Amino acid sequence: MSAAESVWRDIEAIRSGGPLIHNITNYVVMNTTANALLAIGASPVMAHAIEEVEEMTELAAALVINIGTLSQPWIAAMRKAAGRARQLRIPIILDPVGAGATRFRTETARRLLEETPPTILRGNASEIRALAHDEKGTKGVDSRLDSTEAREAAGILASRYGCVVSVSGAADLITDGTFAASVANGHPLMARVTGLGCTASALTGAFAAVNPDPYRAAVHAMAVMGIAGEIAAEQAEGPAGFQVRFVDTLYKLEAGDIESRLRMEVD
Amino acid sequence: MSAAESVWRDIEAIRSGGPLIHNITNYVVMNTTANALLAIGASPVMAHAIEEVEEMTELAAALVINIGTLSQPWIAAMRKAAGRARQLRIPIILDPVGAGATRFRTETARRLLEETPPTILRGNASEIRALAHDEKGTKGVDSRLDSTEAREAAGILASRYGCVVSVSGAADLITDGTFAASVANGHPLMARVTGLGCTASALTGAFAAVNPDPYRAAVHAMAVMGIAGEIAAEQAEGPAGFQVRFVDTLYKLEAGDIESRLRMEVD
Amino acid sequence: MSAAESVWRDIEAIRSGGPLIHNITNYVVMNTTANALLAIGASPVMAHAIEEVEEMTELAAALVINIGTLSQPWIAAMRKAAGRARQLRIPIILDPVGAGATRFRTETARRLLEETPPTILRGNASEIRALAHDEKGTKGVDSRLDSTEAREAAGILASRYGCVVSVSGAADLITDGTFAASVANGHPLMARVTGLGCTASALTGAFAAVNPDPYRAAVHAMAVMGIAGEIAAEQAEGPAGFQVRFVDTLYKLEAGDIESRLRMEVD
Repeated sequence: MSAAESVWRDIEAIRSGGPLIHNITNYVVMNTTANALLAIGASPVMAHAIEEVEEMTELAAALVINIGTLSQPWIAAMRKAAGRARQLRIPIILDPVGAGATRFRTETARRLLEETPPTILRGNASEIRALAHDEKGTKGVDSRLDSTEAREAAGILASRYGCVVSVSGAADLITDGTFAASVANGHPLMARVTGLGCTASALTGAFAAVNPDPYRAAVHAMAVMGIAGEIAAEQAEGPAGFQVRFVDTLYKLEAGDIESRLRMEVD
Repeated sequence: MSAAESVWRDIEAIRSGGPLIHNITNYVVMNTTANALLAIGASPVMAHAIEEVEEMTELAAALVINIGTLSQPWIAAMRKAAGRARQLRIPIILDPVGAGATRFRTETARRLLEETPPTILRGNASEIRALAHDEKGTKGVDSRLDSTEAREAAGILASRYGCVVSVSGAADLITDGTFAASVANGHPLMARVTGLGCTASALTGAFAAVNPDPYRAAVHAMAVMGIAGEIAAEQAEGPAGFQVRFVDTLYKLEAGDIESRLRMEVD
Repeated sequence: MSAAESVWRDIEAIRSGGPLIHNITNYVVMNTTANALLAIGASPVMAHAIEEVEEMTELAAALVINIGTLSQPWIAAMRKAAGRARQLRIPIILDPVGAGATRFRTETARRLLEETPPTILRGNASEIRALAHDEKGTKGVDSRLDSTEAREAAGILASRYGCVVSVSGAADLITDGTFAASVANGHPLMARVTGLGCTASALTGAFAAVNPDPYRAAVHAMAVMGIAGEIAAEQAEGPAGFQVRFVDTLYKLEAGDIESRLRMEVD
């Protein structure tokens, strides 16, 4: 099976199975990530109350935790949900939004990594570096790092926490500490829409829900993000039109789109 | 007056009066339901602080309570606002999002139903069944039930709480325990956009604000949802384009759209 | 330099510098204001935890505080962030959403004005009047006041708190207590989209981040809002299509658009 066929098989599994993805995510992207999950064929639910997160996680095929608009009650819920997901071997995707920007975010992300290591850690290069090293330097939720630094930091975190690390950038990098892949799809306009990194994390949840190999799930999710981004950008006049077309493209994606556009390298 | 004329009269009343609708709703849909209310001609306000909900409800022509992203401080605010709305005979619309999925949601919805029975209970079939019977079975916020079951459950709840029950589905069902109506408008794409059920609840609030008969208000809101959905779907390439067209259709809706498309049955 | 050239210089400074704007804002508009800031070229971050707001404000070029969906923990965070911004002379933009509608909002806005006077107070006419005088009368977050009343109230607040006051309306009014300007750009459709007032406040933050004169920053932001609104409305079929085009227009805005459309009067 070619790489493109393997991506396509996951999309078909998501569309036919409609896996429930439990998101404990930030306020900014709740609507857009729910819509991206629905468009790809998954079934999103958002729930963050300490009273219900374990029960909701039990129903889910994947748990997506995103620290983009953090506060103490949400951290408690994230820890509880992640603990239950670990017990039940439900895949956990952690997006450490803004790690490195404030101590609160860096420490929360580290605590989640240590207490309940995720199946897949998915962030941008400066977040990944801030978590791998003991430095600051993230400018908000923004990211400008060269790919060698990102690759090194990702490898450190993958080994330390026994997880897959998926780093978005001009080329996305995915590693499990041993193997690494890069996905060169995507479009610069994606950096001008809020929450597309968070959408990548949510879709990674959908792929992890249907593919038992988290490394491949992470690669496939980034491939679909990038390919849908390219298609959407071709007709967009700006970032808002792009966002509409991006979601519609996820909904309409065909095997041929993957086949003709996939730019993936494995080493 | 024909059924279509009666729907249209309510739309004109909303457009000319601009009724203030107080929403205590979930994070996912706050933006989209506010925009749907503005598009139909109402004036939305979102407020959830315990310190101000009573005062805000006093200003409102309807109160919409939606438990989609629940937590304890929000429950306290919902109870307080609903209590004040009952005193002032301001119509209350309750959307029990995810009832049946977790005990927390089911119990919160039941508590609101018992302490401050809503004017209109508006949910999907599995939420309504979970509240009518003592079972689980909701898959997240999703809904797959046959219409006979839904009808029976709706009748039980309408009688038990003395409210109108409005159930969305392939055909929507509205009952006050004695009479029942079904609305067969709509489009499958509506299930691929997050928060359209919540939008139905918000619009039900706008109709209840101008129509003193909550049974008719609930029917008219579902008719407008379905008709706007059909028109929007005709040109949409996917769920995000659909969402844009749906809101624009609410804004542009004409009497002839209702007249030519309404598929309502009353028994 | 003409007024249009002066607006354009700020846009270029935003695009080239990508200033970080720290927003403590309401749930309804988080996504749309983040996207508007990205589209104009700024870098938005949303953070509200008491543990991190000071650190985040330290990284930012402007702080935007918006009380649209208020609760006690958020007020504590707003006060703390504003205190730090004052110490560091980082411009603060305060949007007192719904002041006048409930005591809680009016009192919170007044407390923020008194404890940590903003650089720019940006609201609609009824909010500004409610804060200037000791009355009620705001209908939710809505605004219908004549411009003479608005001008008087804005002058009172500008003098009392030593800040610029920027009032949106059919014609926007900006005053520092001594000078006043009005911007007559804009389109009625803007009142049918939720959160465009909040977007005006967010963009005011971006302009205040690059222009050391807050009076001019406030004027330029309202000019860009109005001009982008006019361009977007020309092709829009309704408020949702308008919103998409509005953000895309911010992204594509050219010097000629400002030059040919600016309708500003200074007295």
